[in-house]
Amino acid sequence: MRGAVLHAPGDIRVEEREDPRIGAPTDAIIRLSATCVCGSDLWPYRGIDKVAEPAPMGHEYVGIVEEVGSAVRNVRKGQFVVGSFFASDNTCDICRAGYQSSCVRRVGVGANGAQAEYLRVPLADGTLVATPDVPPADLIPSYLAASDVLGTGWFGAVAAEVGPGKTVAVVGDGAVGLLAVLAARHLGAERVIAMSRHEPRQNLAREFGATDIVTERADDGVARIKELTGGLGADSVIEAVGTQESMMQAIRATRPGGHVGYVGVAHDVRLPGDELFFSHVHLHGGPAPVRRFLPELIELIGSRRIDPGKVFDLSLPLDQAAEAYRAMDERRAIKVLLQPEESDK
Amino acid sequence: MRGAVLHAPGDIRVEEREDPRIGAPTDAIIRLSATCVCGSDLWPYRGIDKVAEPAPMGHEYVGIVEEVGSAVRNVRKGQFVVGSFFASDNTCDICRAGYQSSCVRRVGVGANGAQAEYLRVPLADGTLVATPDVPPADLIPSYLAASDVLGTGWFGAVAAEVGPGKTVAVVGDGAVGLLAVLAARHLGAERVIAMSRHEPRQNLAREFGATDIVTERADDGVARIKELTGGLGADSVIEAVGTQESMMQAIRATRPGGHVGYVGVAHDVRLPGDELFFSHVHLHGGPAPVRRFLPELIELIGSRRIDPGKVFDLSLPLDQAAEAYRAMDERRAIKVLLQPEESDK
Repeated sequence: MRGAVLHAPGDIRVEEREDPRIGAPTDAIIRLSATCVCGSDLWPYRGIDKVAEPAPMGHEYVGIVEEVGSAVRNVRKGQFVVGSFFASDNTCDICRAGYQSSCVRRVGVGANGAQAEYLRVPLADGTLVATPDVPPADLIPSYLAASDVLGTGWFGAVAAEVGPGKTVAVVGDGAVGLLAVLAARHLGAERVIAMSRHEPRQNLAREFGATDIVTERADDGVARIKELTGGLGADSVIEAVGTQESMMQAIRATRPGGHVGYVGVAHDVRLPGDELFFSHVHLHGGPAPVRRFLPELIELIGSRRIDPGKVFDLSLPLDQAAEAYRAMDERRAIKVLLQPEESDK
Repeated sequence: MRGAVLHAPGDIRVEEREDPRIGAPTDAIIRLSATCVCGSDLWPYRGIDKVAEPAPMGHEYVGIVEEVGSAVRNVRKGQFVVGSFFASDNTCDICRAGYQSSCVRRVGVGANGAQAEYLRVPLADGTLVATPDVPPADLIPSYLAASDVLGTGWFGAVAAEVGPGKTVAVVGDGAVGLLAVLAARHLGAERVIAMSRHEPRQNLAREFGATDIVTERADDGVARIKELTGGLGADSVIEAVGTQESMMQAIRATRPGGHVGYVGVAHDVRLPGDELFFSHVHLHGGPAPVRRFLPELIELIGSRRIDPGKVFDLSLPLDQAAEAYRAMDERRAIKVLLQPEESDK
């Protein structure tokens, strides 16, 4: 099969890779209907995360079950399924508490490389959720978004305790931040402040339900949020970047007693204990337990009540993965969908 | 009047200070029935927090209202009242959300020096809570504990989302940690693990409801907590020290999805963002909004359902404040109660 491999910073190649095979009886093999490039894929692409050896890339996926191991009960050949970046058994105490991305048996799916034609998914029963029917083509981008960026934005909103009547601010205007806006609105927030200085992203934020746009950053951004909230700060702030600046911006924009939900993968962040202490905020986040939200998200997408697929503003054949990475790296695209070529299957 | 003043590290003197007077119409003057030395008083006493000029000390107090300003409505002369270290209006949005120690009008009471015969309390209506009657002498230590250490331990337990059936670990065996054990048990925890290597404190922890004692510290302590919790970590961990080591111990001893409640005043703490991210814990804490809990705590103490006054294992006349500080600094006493001399009033 063909799949994207990162050889060195900036060097993505789509090349022949071995077809994945069932290894454990709990595995499933999926023929991918769509995959995509994640903001977090840019960390190694930019050389910020080290690339020790050629690495298959991609951890976002939807597709048709091609084959299942002998122990798999919950999904079967021919079903359309959505999974996420960590495989989980969905039965351990941690999974049952809703933290499947910290499952005691968790396995990263990304190492298998989802930017490809086929993917092996471990712990298929706990990881994959099937849609009621094979969906029409126009819904596929939205299901693909559920696989990571929607689930992650949703977790950010839940971790920030978004709810009816609340004022929510979102730090970060990537796909996760934009979908956190959608999640916040869906969860009943009265006011959703998107922090963005890029017009196309501001427009999408408004489409997803943002009521206010703040273009200032860092301390100026914090001051603007306070102005908009009677000097107190937002009830809930969702952090979707992962830098020192964005974390401090989120903490400082939150009122005492309020909640920060942080889902940007932390890079070189050191939180000052004294400032955190006196901020009185709640802090929660981490790698999103997307699996917790999949049944609900699949239902909302299938019934066309949300349209998260709009974050894909560029769609390319898998073979053009290198251009997909470039477009995201240069911020020419918010998020790029990749279509595996299946003509010969 | 007489009051304790810190002149330099290690140099506490009880000397003549000016009698406090009503300054604003919202002030009250209290004749102190009892006051005490706090673990946080040891930071400047040890020279870790700088002492720029002679500073009146103490922020824990109970006493009889001597005089109120013209705007005070909720307390009156002759009542026995409990207050806490931040004065708050108890009416702003932040107070009404339960974060009185971040009240938009908050004033530190400590600058007025509660280790004295009299104390001026600003924003008396929002800050002071009266007991139904002037209590018998044997309950005074428990009410005094409510003023800070009990309220702080209680907030730690609430911030750590302690509840029925949960396993709770407490990092720190000072008065706050020990009273966090009491709070955790009262809030329904099934198992309360106190981390302490000092036998008298272990005994008091057991008396307050600890079911297990862990003597190991740092990573060994974390390993022991994991052993006791099926490898997962505790549901709730209360941090009552405020150092880098104790914070990391608390975070690492908490299971994914669990809650850390931190109430030790942070000193030189820098939390690593990546470890925090992947820990999946909830983090909440800060200066305890003691005022939130005072009505409930006063009721529990008055009906003798809890006996937090047991943390005072030494009681001295106010004039011996220097010895009180030494005893706590050398860990000869858990917490020292000071009795103001009132013979001439």
